[in-house]
Amino acid sequence: MSNPQPALTFEEIRALVRNLPGPDLDAGTAAVQRERTLTKPPGSLGRLEELAEWLATWQGQHPPEVRRPRVAVFAGNHGVAARGVSAYPTEVTAQMVANFQNGGAAVNQLCEAADADLRVYELDLEHPTRDFTQGPAMGEDECCRAMAYGMMAVEMGVQLLALGEMGIGNSTSAAAICAALFGGDAAGWVGRGTGVDEDGLKRKVAAVEAGLKANPTAKDDPFEALRCLGGYELAAIAGAILAARMARVPVLLDGYACTAAAAVLFKADRRALDHCVVAHRSVEPGHTRLLEVIGKQPVLDLGMRLGEGSGAALAINIVKAAAACHAGMATFASAGVTDRA
Amino acid sequence: MSNPQPALTFEEIRALVRNLPGPDLDAGTAAVQRERTLTKPPGSLGRLEELAEWLATWQGQHPPEVRRPRVAVFAGNHGVAARGVSAYPTEVTAQMVANFQNGGAAVNQLCEAADADLRVYELDLEHPTRDFTQGPAMGEDECCRAMAYGMMAVEMGVQLLALGEMGIGNSTSAAAICAALFGGDAAGWVGRGTGVDEDGLKRKVAAVEAGLKANPTAKDDPFEALRCLGGYELAAIAGAILAARMARVPVLLDGYACTAAAAVLFKADRRALDHCVVAHRSVEPGHTRLLEVIGKQPVLDLGMRLGEGSGAALAINIVKAAAACHAGMATFASAGVTDRA
Repeated sequence: MSNPQPALTFEEIRALVRNLPGPDLDAGTAAVQRERTLTKPPGSLGRLEELAEWLATWQGQHPPEVRRPRVAVFAGNHGVAARGVSAYPTEVTAQMVANFQNGGAAVNQLCEAADADLRVYELDLEHPTRDFTQGPAMGEDECCRAMAYGMMAVEMGVQLLALGEMGIGNSTSAAAICAALFGGDAAGWVGRGTGVDEDGLKRKVAAVEAGLKANPTAKDDPFEALRCLGGYELAAIAGAILAARMARVPVLLDGYACTAAAAVLFKADRRALDHCVVAHRSVEPGHTRLLEVIGKQPVLDLGMRLGEGSGAALAINIVKAAAACHAGMATFASAGVTDRA
Repeated sequence: MSNPQPALTFEEIRALVRNLPGPDLDAGTAAVQRERTLTKPPGSLGRLEELAEWLATWQGQHPPEVRRPRVAVFAGNHGVAARGVSAYPTEVTAQMVANFQNGGAAVNQLCEAADADLRVYELDLEHPTRDFTQGPAMGEDECCRAMAYGMMAVEMGVQLLALGEMGIGNSTSAAAICAALFGGDAAGWVGRGTGVDEDGLKRKVAAVEAGLKANPTAKDDPFEALRCLGGYELAAIAGAILAARMARVPVLLDGYACTAAAAVLFKADRRALDHCVVAHRSVEPGHTRLLEVIGKQPVLDLGMRLGEGSGAALAINIVKAAAACHAGMATFASAGVTDRA
């Protein structure tokens, strides 16, 4: 990283995961009870009711608030990109970061539409991770430093954190991580990403297979999978998710690469993603498979596959709407509406 | 209606439907061409790209704009409600209209979250339509007056119209309309609505069956189906959809009752709903069936079943996001991002 962080080790991260704060059941129960009194048939707002309850439970407050949402996009480069696994060259990562900074990307428009604070975190783009087909992508120190860097996205006052990534080659990295964490053929976790052709798809499958072979320890431990097959931006996302849990900030996950980074924590502890909602279902077939494994139902399903936090940013207004209905609606009693016959 | 409208006849409405304006292919093509230049892999914004193209095509302008969205909620009462087909008594329609006026309903919060202009149109709530199990719910004059009333929702300057309804008993009316328009068993079009129990469900099926029997002309003509089995608010929605088409205002349809009203126009002419997008999939099983028949894929699928325009209002921010990405994103050329390798 360009900004060295205080040292952190996998052992310390494992200790964090073992001691994650649980749900605030008082706040969650207060939300459930209020929902029952609002002027609508019980359950008729569906997922919006669940989102309001989730927000209260993981913010630890009732009513929940989403006045200060943040979108954090982490960018990193991947050695494996040299294997021809993307439709775009590696320099596009830095070019897109410049595009984010100039307000020209999709995520800029989506953050403006959601009145969200966009922060872009570059992770040493001039120095990609090593090509994982030849051995570990990162050392433990590098992986931990990236995780610590990701934790910085959780600043005081943020009420909802939407996470995203930019990194040419990272859908191959995501597929390799998923295969290491959950098994199955490489081909079952690989998709067309930014839009590779048949040959590109074959190169992606071959890279994942080679990565698993070159990194036999990746299957033994989730953080080893992240270190050997991941990237700086994916490690940063995992760090941000942990920091958000500790700070009582609910998290919106974006598409395949983002959810794969999160899945490292799920594999370490099945409760580690309870404060996270998956914002949308990516077209990438591995995402649907991964959502089944981690037991998450996405909020949106709009045929998107862009990454850069676009799906997570788009879902912020849905979460805001859920909080607004929960806080702002009248009750049957206050509105003088007759409850069930 | 309390405000008498200029006379309109089914014959005149049929003439309108025969002469609906078509798509603006120039504006639509301009949108498709611009999408290809924006800094993202082609197609990677999925449905957002389609929504931007749809907006341009039916607003007849490029770039499309959604700065002035309106949510129009029509309220009417149904004679068939006396048959015990709802979990709530008829007076709840007027009570909920008061709740809308006082800002306490879900749709109020959702309109505020979407910065949308909410208008509520009451259709003579003190005088419900006649019980359709005993004969036609409306005369042609009443049905046409309600349609004309609905047309008033399309005022100059509205750039997107989201439609909704409030009417205790109207999911039974929706089921009867669908059965008349598209055939099939009554039970296949009936659901739990606001949350009736097993006996209530049986009463709904019986009411639809009785309605079809008591109104043999309903199967012969879509406007007869609307007149015999519909309600004032459903006729108003059909009118609003027609007026929007003529004024080049794209339309967001809400759930089952709203889409059933729209389906009357679809049955009259398969192109009549080309300017409409279905905002969400209701839990009501008849809605999924109806969406298949009219060939519409909903934007959202969030387990909602409230009506009152809630799903349509919630989707406005998605449509706004689509327009914002389309208009605001940089192109590969302007941002200096390398296009495909």
